[in-house]
Amino acid sequence: MSVIQRLISEFSRLPSVGSKTAQRLVYHLMKVPREESLRLAEAIREVAKRIHPCGVCGNFSESELCDICANSSRDQTLICLVEEAYDVGAIERAGEYRGLYHVLGGRLSPLDGVGPEELNVSQLLDRIRSSGGAVGEVIMATNSSVEGEATAVYLEGMIRPLGPRITRLARGIPVGGDLEYLDGSTIVEALAGRREM
Amino acid sequence: MSVIQRLISEFSRLPSVGSKTAQRLVYHLMKVPREESLRLAEAIREVAKRIHPCGVCGNFSESELCDICANSSRDQTLICLVEEAYDVGAIERAGEYRGLYHVLGGRLSPLDGVGPEELNVSQLLDRIRSSGGAVGEVIMATNSSVEGEATAVYLEGMIRPLGPRITRLARGIPVGGDLEYLDGSTIVEALAGRREM
Repeated sequence: MSVIQRLISEFSRLPSVGSKTAQRLVYHLMKVPREESLRLAEAIREVAKRIHPCGVCGNFSESELCDICANSSRDQTLICLVEEAYDVGAIERAGEYRGLYHVLGGRLSPLDGVGPEELNVSQLLDRIRSSGGAVGEVIMATNSSVEGEATAVYLEGMIRPLGPRITRLARGIPVGGDLEYLDGSTIVEALAGRREM
Repeated sequence: MSVIQRLISEFSRLPSVGSKTAQRLVYHLMKVPREESLRLAEAIREVAKRIHPCGVCGNFSESELCDICANSSRDQTLICLVEEAYDVGAIERAGEYRGLYHVLGGRLSPLDGVGPEELNVSQLLDRIRSSGGAVGEVIMATNSSVEGEATAVYLEGMIRPLGPRITRLARGIPVGGDLEYLDGSTIVEALAGRREM
């Protein structure tokens, strides 16, 4: 396999990159100054070598503890449970949440062979247990998909005996959302969760 | 800038990769086994270090001459003129063409500051001249865009005095194309270029 073919095939493994896109990326890299390609290669190497999961929450981190776990000004009584590390990014960008996180690393999906052992579940339970009651609330922020729901329900059963309050993100109409284009179940949830104005 | 931020910004420079996609790619690379990321980095380095333009036609190559120019069984009297190296790939995949290529490296686009000096034009003229009449035909295979057309017309003027026949790709209805969805100018070209059945 030529070096070009090899790079096309490596790019094709990336999510949402098909073989056509991979080809375009490779042609682009062959056109730009060599330094630019080498900079990309180096940035990938750096991430591969220096980033690993935070020892506490499973978020990606350059050090033993991620910035959030290491930040003592965050609310230590609150753990927000998310499927993936990029969900942490999404919530952090919203800018309001001041508690901690726990990254499951996926969702339960028996058909794909993902059971509780494949996720950071035992670490979560240990974390709550070893806090000696300091964790007062666990917020379920798994995705609102069938698997995300199933994961939340399963975890609720595991966490309940340990004591903390368990909440989940509100369902309803997204900000800027148009009723006309929302599915029925979202509208049902929005009605059920209606609040005084 | 953290190593994660740096990689996101490097990915964002790639064509059709916005910052959201770049982020997803980086999260993906952090999730896969480290070897997989390092393999991608290495493949990019290899391409950056080993691939350069063919000394004759400008196509990408691992050696001084590209495989096509080095292949003496290709028809040496025929040069197909394309804008970019990936156009060579497109024509080669079609599997019929047995001549040589010349890669311009772009198209004339005065507004973007791309004049004849920015393209492999003088190399093309030298190549035809130094062939001593061996190049019997130049096929214009620039894109059917305004700039592609302008490039073809300009080059025609330069090549004409050197003697070879100058042809261009046929215009018409793409195979599988639906008249209903074709623009008027394509239909006009298809009518003008109609052939006996």
